[in-house]
Amino acid sequence: MEQFKINIYQEDTIAAISTPQGQGGVAIIRISGPQALSTISKAWKGTDLQKVESHTLHLGKYFDTEGKLLDEALAALFKAPNSFTGEDVVELNIHGSQWLQKTILSDLIKRGIRIARPGEFTQRAFLNGKMDLTQAEGVADLIAASSKAAHAMAINQTRGGFSKEIEILRSRLIEFASLLELELDFSEEDVEFADRAQLLFLCNQIKEKIKKLTDSYASGEVLKNGVPVVIAGIPNAGKSSLLNLLLKEEKAIVTDIPGTTRDIIEDTVEINGILYRFIDTAGLRKTEDIVEAIGVKKAQESLKKAYIVIWLIDPNQNINEQIDQINKFKIKNQDKKLIVLINKSDLLNDRTENIENDILKLNAIPFSTLTQNGLKPLLEMLHEEATKGIHPETDIIVTNARHYESLSKALESVERVEDNLQRGISADLVAQDIRETLTHLATLTGAISSDTLLHSIFSRFCIGK
Amino acid sequence: MEQFKINIYQEDTIAAISTPQGQGGVAIIRISGPQALSTISKAWKGTDLQKVESHTLHLGKYFDTEGKLLDEALAALFKAPNSFTGEDVVELNIHGSQWLQKTILSDLIKRGIRIARPGEFTQRAFLNGKMDLTQAEGVADLIAASSKAAHAMAINQTRGGFSKEIEILRSRLIEFASLLELELDFSEEDVEFADRAQLLFLCNQIKEKIKKLTDSYASGEVLKNGVPVVIAGIPNAGKSSLLNLLLKEEKAIVTDIPGTTRDIIEDTVEINGILYRFIDTAGLRKTEDIVEAIGVKKAQESLKKAYIVIWLIDPNQNINEQIDQINKFKIKNQDKKLIVLINKSDLLNDRTENIENDILKLNAIPFSTLTQNGLKPLLEMLHEEATKGIHPETDIIVTNARHYESLSKALESVERVEDNLQRGISADLVAQDIRETLTHLATLTGAISSDTLLHSIFSRFCIGK
Repeated sequence: MEQFKINIYQEDTIAAISTPQGQGGVAIIRISGPQALSTISKAWKGTDLQKVESHTLHLGKYFDTEGKLLDEALAALFKAPNSFTGEDVVELNIHGSQWLQKTILSDLIKRGIRIARPGEFTQRAFLNGKMDLTQAEGVADLIAASSKAAHAMAINQTRGGFSKEIEILRSRLIEFASLLELELDFSEEDVEFADRAQLLFLCNQIKEKIKKLTDSYASGEVLKNGVPVVIAGIPNAGKSSLLNLLLKEEKAIVTDIPGTTRDIIEDTVEINGILYRFIDTAGLRKTEDIVEAIGVKKAQESLKKAYIVIWLIDPNQNINEQIDQINKFKIKNQDKKLIVLINKSDLLNDRTENIENDILKLNAIPFSTLTQNGLKPLLEMLHEEATKGIHPETDIIVTNARHYESLSKALESVERVEDNLQRGISADLVAQDIRETLTHLATLTGAISSDTLLHSIFSRFCIGK
Repeated sequence: MEQFKINIYQEDTIAAISTPQGQGGVAIIRISGPQALSTISKAWKGTDLQKVESHTLHLGKYFDTEGKLLDEALAALFKAPNSFTGEDVVELNIHGSQWLQKTILSDLIKRGIRIARPGEFTQRAFLNGKMDLTQAEGVADLIAASSKAAHAMAINQTRGGFSKEIEILRSRLIEFASLLELELDFSEEDVEFADRAQLLFLCNQIKEKIKKLTDSYASGEVLKNGVPVVIAGIPNAGKSSLLNLLLKEEKAIVTDIPGTTRDIIEDTVEINGILYRFIDTAGLRKTEDIVEAIGVKKAQESLKKAYIVIWLIDPNQNINEQIDQINKFKIKNQDKKLIVLINKSDLLNDRTENIENDILKLNAIPFSTLTQNGLKPLLEMLHEEATKGIHPETDIIVTNARHYESLSKALESVERVEDNLQRGISADLVAQDIRETLTHLATLTGAISSDTLLHSIFSRFCIGK
């Protein structure tokens, strides 16, 4: 893997608390940089940390600059380049009092160590060539992952994910680019160093690869952050009961008075490895009640944010009106996935049999929040709609807006290359679009990066990582 | 140090998250027990953890029981008996997502490891003879310490604190006890194996030592938990302004309308290494306002909880009445430390000079919340009153109610021994009181302990320590 970056020597030594904020049995203060070992050695009584091997642990005493004992601690040592950051790293495992964490960190500052910015350890790992940019971003996703699917996608990304495949294609594209540039140098001689058929084949490969990746983004993004599922339907259709059933707790206040739910009630729950963000809404109807009217308006807005809509039909109310409502919604929101439930299936009677056809057309599932009839098929449909076409545990999936943007731009330019090649356009124009494609792909993996880009990526990290 | 405990082999292997709760860069899962190494090895891909040396760190991959990659992690290894618990210990340093922490812990349970009870690692350390009971209790105090003073006392305690000295005296007392028991065996021959003068001298030594310790408890306890300082005075004397000044933030709503403060406002702040629990109160006066009256009642109650009372005199209001109020309080509360401030010293005028004598008698400090005049002497007095006679960083101080109780009981019985010796009472009675003294001292260090005692101590620990 070719890298435009050279290892950048970081002059200052940084420190931060790497464990979660608060009081606990143990806390870790991570120190990285050229002065890590020598600085800690001055505060340390025990084994001489400058003489021990990498990847070893040492019990010792930490004294502050005034010579007062602060803690009996463990020092974990990692010597450059065999550490997370690629620099010398000391990880102090101290007693987890908040006072002690704060005090030892202050003492380190007195000794000339600087507090690390959010994500600065990972940034150094990237700058020192320990990982590419998508891997570094994967580290942040891994820490934030709150479901099996999100975790699987993040861990794939930290392990190289799609950047490996992209890099292979990119290095082959670079070869062609060089050959094309060579042609330009000999432009008056009208030679073709780069085999156009091979180049076209490669562009097609790149295009297909990128397309597969960009196609995964819509699902990938919701799987990472939680799939927004809005529960809709007319008042008293049983929306709050369904929410409670899905969340398995009495979250929404359930009464049989229509219009009980006014606020949007939202909660997340992991089902079969996927995090859902279920959103209960006020029943959709024209209302005189001002507060309820606001609720209905909010419900309509939250429908816009839905990735999946579960629409509850109440067979005891006007069914035709409800079907009309759903059809209108479907026409306006073709990008949303819709699951229709016919609720209170336990109450279904002869009257409702007449509307069977309409319901069949909507592919509705008979459901009962009371008997939990239909829950299993509902959960299966949710899972299918959420993961449509992708397998978080095995597929390479794009979950990051920045990656999606770079890939989309690369796709545009590689399509231009393909198009121009097919139309027999001159080498200089083709070469320009290839350069553009290469730039977008390089930005993706961080082979090309700017301070602004790095800042915007790493500032979103947590402290201490 | 003689121990009644023998090393107890713990059959099951336990695990817990040792870092603070929540999401962070890194989290530690600690695993301790005979199966720690073999169990982790099954989940681990990387170096063979069963073959590596103690106190080493290894990068590897953790796979769940279904063979799915959960994390790329660091395993820190400590082999029995050279670990915190004295058993084989593995500390997994994993990425700090809450989902991952929960999931790896669940996976360990599937592999036959049990979730550790609060404090169970430290309990095992105690049971395996790695530390005595007061040291173990010091670990909990160390983690909870929220000021320099509390931290210094806790760290002294983890390092052996007073138990070392107690143990020396106790072992000498055991010698005398044996000699006395011997006398009882030869009771018909009327011999004295135990030198009464030496025994009396030892008892006196023990008594003095214990007295010094029990005397430190009142201060030690408040220094550990924060010194409760109640700010009292008539309405509009400037109590809330003083609180704000001490906390350096606008915590209490300050107005010049008397009776503004109704709730008790409380906050803690560390000044010069000592944690103070400042409590602002409603002004003490007879009032018609019902809400304010409740506030005044609450204020009187919170005065009871004070260790130090700062009483603010307003020179612009009836001073004689205020002095009366203070004198009445002093008579009733002789155990409380009192600091009187004459506030609004910037407004002092001729009229107030007449009351100079009274104020001198109360040892009042001229003060101004406006100009901060008097703040320095106030802080010095607070420090002096809080630490009266003890030096948290160097002295051995009792901060624990259980220790105080054991020591007090030991003191009572050793005083009986002394008394009986001086009165020439027969050896069997003296021997009995010596045994009692020994028991109380042994309970203190855990040389004698019961399951109930251990449970009550360790259940107050945090999880993972």
